[in-house]
Amino acid sequence: MSEDIYDLDTASTPRGDGIRDLTLTDRWNTPLGKPNGGYLLAAMLRGLGEEIGGGDAMVAAITYLASPETGPAELRTSTLRRGRRVQTGEAALWEGDRHIAQLLASYGSRTGGRTLELGTSPPLPPPGACVDPGTEGMPDVTASIFDRVDYRMASRPGWVDGLPSGDPTVELWQRLADGREIDLPALAFLCDSFAPPVLEIGELGSMTVQLTVHLHRRPVPGWIATRLTTRHVINGFHEEDCELWDEAGNLVAQSRQLAIL
Amino acid sequence: MSEDIYDLDTASTPRGDGIRDLTLTDRWNTPLGKPNGGYLLAAMLRGLGEEIGGGDAMVAAITYLASPETGPAELRTSTLRRGRRVQTGEAALWEGDRHIAQLLASYGSRTGGRTLELGTSPPLPPPGACVDPGTEGMPDVTASIFDRVDYRMASRPGWVDGLPSGDPTVELWQRLADGREIDLPALAFLCDSFAPPVLEIGELGSMTVQLTVHLHRRPVPGWIATRLTTRHVINGFHEEDCELWDEAGNLVAQSRQLAIL
Repeated sequence: MSEDIYDLDTASTPRGDGIRDLTLTDRWNTPLGKPNGGYLLAAMLRGLGEEIGGGDAMVAAITYLASPETGPAELRTSTLRRGRRVQTGEAALWEGDRHIAQLLASYGSRTGGRTLELGTSPPLPPPGACVDPGTEGMPDVTASIFDRVDYRMASRPGWVDGLPSGDPTVELWQRLADGREIDLPALAFLCDSFAPPVLEIGELGSMTVQLTVHLHRRPVPGWIATRLTTRHVINGFHEEDCELWDEAGNLVAQSRQLAIL
Repeated sequence: MSEDIYDLDTASTPRGDGIRDLTLTDRWNTPLGKPNGGYLLAAMLRGLGEEIGGGDAMVAAITYLASPETGPAELRTSTLRRGRRVQTGEAALWEGDRHIAQLLASYGSRTGGRTLELGTSPPLPPPGACVDPGTEGMPDVTASIFDRVDYRMASRPGWVDGLPSGDPTVELWQRLADGREIDLPALAFLCDSFAPPVLEIGELGSMTVQLTVHLHRRPVPGWIATRLTTRHVINGFHEEDCELWDEAGNLVAQSRQLAIL
């Protein structure tokens, strides 16, 4: 049996009727003491993908309905369409009689088509020249997610010292702890695994309503350069964009979420 | 009975069990002779919202599963959660035994929270100083959607004359024909109502797989300044972002889609 925590904690067991059993562990908890939403997404995306039996996860739209708890959960999946290039399904995450999250996702393979990149990866110093905000920057925060993800930043974020920069953009390196291989569901997790950039405009937190992730390609081994930015805060809600770039300079994923301040 | 085409064509009739009947008309056809995907989204978002009976449409994630035809269709809705601030449901669009599209959407109201805008609206000349690409720019294209939407651009798009600019960004004014009021489902439509900007990098078309729209506020009466841009084309797929700004300079909606070249 695998001893890999990511592998264990995102696994679900099929019953054969599209329903899968899984356990949300306490090893991906945020500072609020709840399982991270990106962790739920990775487990759901992996389980639905195994039910569909198709290609790579390609796009995932998740809506968070209720606050998750650690413990046993049920993933109720259904396949909506098996197309030639794209396979689509949905999955509902339930804990007892509580509907926690709903996922609509597509899978497929991308081969042979055109590639044109007009974006650029975040201009970060090499990871070895960066600080670890999990230990150097946030001395008072304990959360098990800091044991699952390695973070590296050019400098301590301003909000950690009570001095938000005023610019809701954060750039950092991320990888799964100990350099564990990052698959496509793990990329979806890494789109929502760090503190929201609205902390740099003086907000104390943010709760995701809806998150859509585009998974463009598997990363080369190494760190993931991450750009998080919020440009629009409107009547108590904000959008947040994320780009993930691998060490070869390829965009591997991007996401956008709508969240409540 | 209303004579307003937008109102008529996005209406659906409830059966009382969450299922609604509607007709996809031929009045929103693209140059490919099929109903526009944004039109489907507007009708689905409106019907689901009426079933949920809640607040304003706030975020919508739609996956297009099969090519739509004009004619009778069925909207199968279900409410997933009625929260204090956010109500969420899903809706499946069927035509006979064909599952055409699946929507996951949330509704609610935004009152009293913080607003901070870091983006800027497209620097377009006033609509009266712009050209109408529907008549001046695309003489060979016929599509009924050009009768439903008024378009104005600073100049003819390069691709119309076989001279794509190489820059997959398009800025234009849009409004519903005759200045018909633009509600939130209509904003969702306007995120996908014009030619894709990849035409400016020599592509001939694009097919949306998944589209997520954030609906931030109702626009003031007038034209909608629209910014469409593609920055990442990866192995035959591309993302496309849209921002919609009203004449008062407020961001009213934004969207991102994943599409196949």
